[in-house]
Amino acid sequence: MTTEDGAAFAREVQERLAGMGVELPKPADASYTYDTVVVWGDIAFVSGQIPKLDGAVAFQGVVGDGPTIDDGIAAAQLCAANAIAQLDRAVGLERVARVLKLNGYVASAPGFVQHPSVIEGASKFLVAALGEAGRHARTALGVPRLPADALVEIELVVGLRPAA
Amino acid sequence: MTTEDGAAFAREVQERLAGMGVELPKPADASYTYDTVVVWGDIAFVSGQIPKLDGAVAFQGVVGDGPTIDDGIAAAQLCAANAIAQLDRAVGLERVARVLKLNGYVASAPGFVQHPSVIEGASKFLVAALGEAGRHARTALGVPRLPADALVEIELVVGLRPAA
Amino acid sequence: MTTEDGAAFAREVQERLAGMGVELPKPADASYTYDTVVVWGDIAFVSGQIPKLDGAVAFQGVVGDGPTIDDGIAAAQLCAANAIAQLDRAVGLERVARVLKLNGYVASAPGFVQHPSVIEGASKFLVAALGEAGRHARTALGVPRLPADALVEIELVVGLRPAA
Repeated sequence: MTTEDGAAFAREVQERLAGMGVELPKPADASYTYDTVVVWGDIAFVSGQIPKLDGAVAFQGVVGDGPTIDDGIAAAQLCAANAIAQLDRAVGLERVARVLKLNGYVASAPGFVQHPSVIEGASKFLVAALGEAGRHARTALGVPRLPADALVEIELVVGLRPAA
Repeated sequence: MTTEDGAAFAREVQERLAGMGVELPKPADASYTYDTVVVWGDIAFVSGQIPKLDGAVAFQGVVGDGPTIDDGIAAAQLCAANAIAQLDRAVGLERVARVLKLNGYVASAPGFVQHPSVIEGASKFLVAALGEAGRHARTALGVPRLPADALVEIELVVGLRPAA
Repeated sequence: MTTEDGAAFAREVQERLAGMGVELPKPADASYTYDTVVVWGDIAFVSGQIPKLDGAVAFQGVVGDGPTIDDGIAAAQLCAANAIAQLDRAVGLERVARVLKLNGYVASAPGFVQHPSVIEGASKFLVAALGEAGRHARTALGVPRLPADALVEIELVVGLRPAA
């Protein structure tokens, strides 16, 4: 793959996001002693992303205990948008070759088992924004509560093109 | 390592499975927008596998709340068999060099702390089927419930031989 | 990077640990059918580490239900010390180039959402001991209970220098 491929890919992603009416959120700085993205060779590890918008957590609580599955899907989309924004800031969209793995966590009421329907919001957003490069392996899980009372959290492993 | 090593390894795995009286389940297609296996260089990421057999989830519920640890072990074995079946379909057993990491999740009743005894079912199955190539790093965790009410779920990172 | 860089790095880590007054715990053998560290190329996967000291789990229970956040932080530090001890035994500190990813799990009372404050104990310990090489991407999560009733568990993905 050439650098031009990367530049063309980045333009396509920007056009897709514009077509979806999506503006990427401003990527949040890590509040603790970690890096939001760490690159090792041709792989990037993206830290857990919660549904932050304008510095606040936009979706909080527990799916099935007030917030609905649709709230969860919207939260998962926003997590995915934050992950793309983090990648853009850290390495540039032009280096994103393929999302390799997505782990998604849903704050879930007792008995809730539809975690995949919620995390699907993140998966569809990644494919809508990144095309085939957004397709990934995935694990969806539920937990009782999430950091900062976030409704959903996702983390990514991403394959990179060589730096220009 | 040569391609012949891979072919010999695949034959050995088939012989081991036959010796164990195990027929690999038909690998399930992803029900959502993700790929069951994604390959990046010499690493494969295998999506979360639940204990599916013939299209149904064979072990459901919560260990310690009806289902026993032995049910959990059997479920973990079936998860591992599904993971091997996914690898066989996606890349072929002849490319499997080493299971690098297994993360296992157990749907657990409150107070349950024997998650490693349950996930051990998957670890032992991988070593029985794949030999030394099946040895892996591991994390075992409990969650209140799992997608599709599965009793156990596992995900793998796998090291690959070069494609022939 | 040369082998001498690695040797100098290992000496620095030993000096930092001495300055912190920390003696690394004896790395625990895996109690089940897995390896504590698996190496693939220039990446090491470190199995889930619980706060073991002298063969016993030093911090047990659930944060917020007896044990405090400070107990959780101390447990997370001990988990990180165990992870470094595992790396030292498996590959030698001189091969550690960068901690790439830390996943941290906190046994949490219902409603607890300060998982990052607990896992921060592990993150700060890694940076204090390893310097810039200890900075990592991170996901912090809560679960109802952990294996062996551990208060905290962490797992690492680590980038390695070439073997000498």
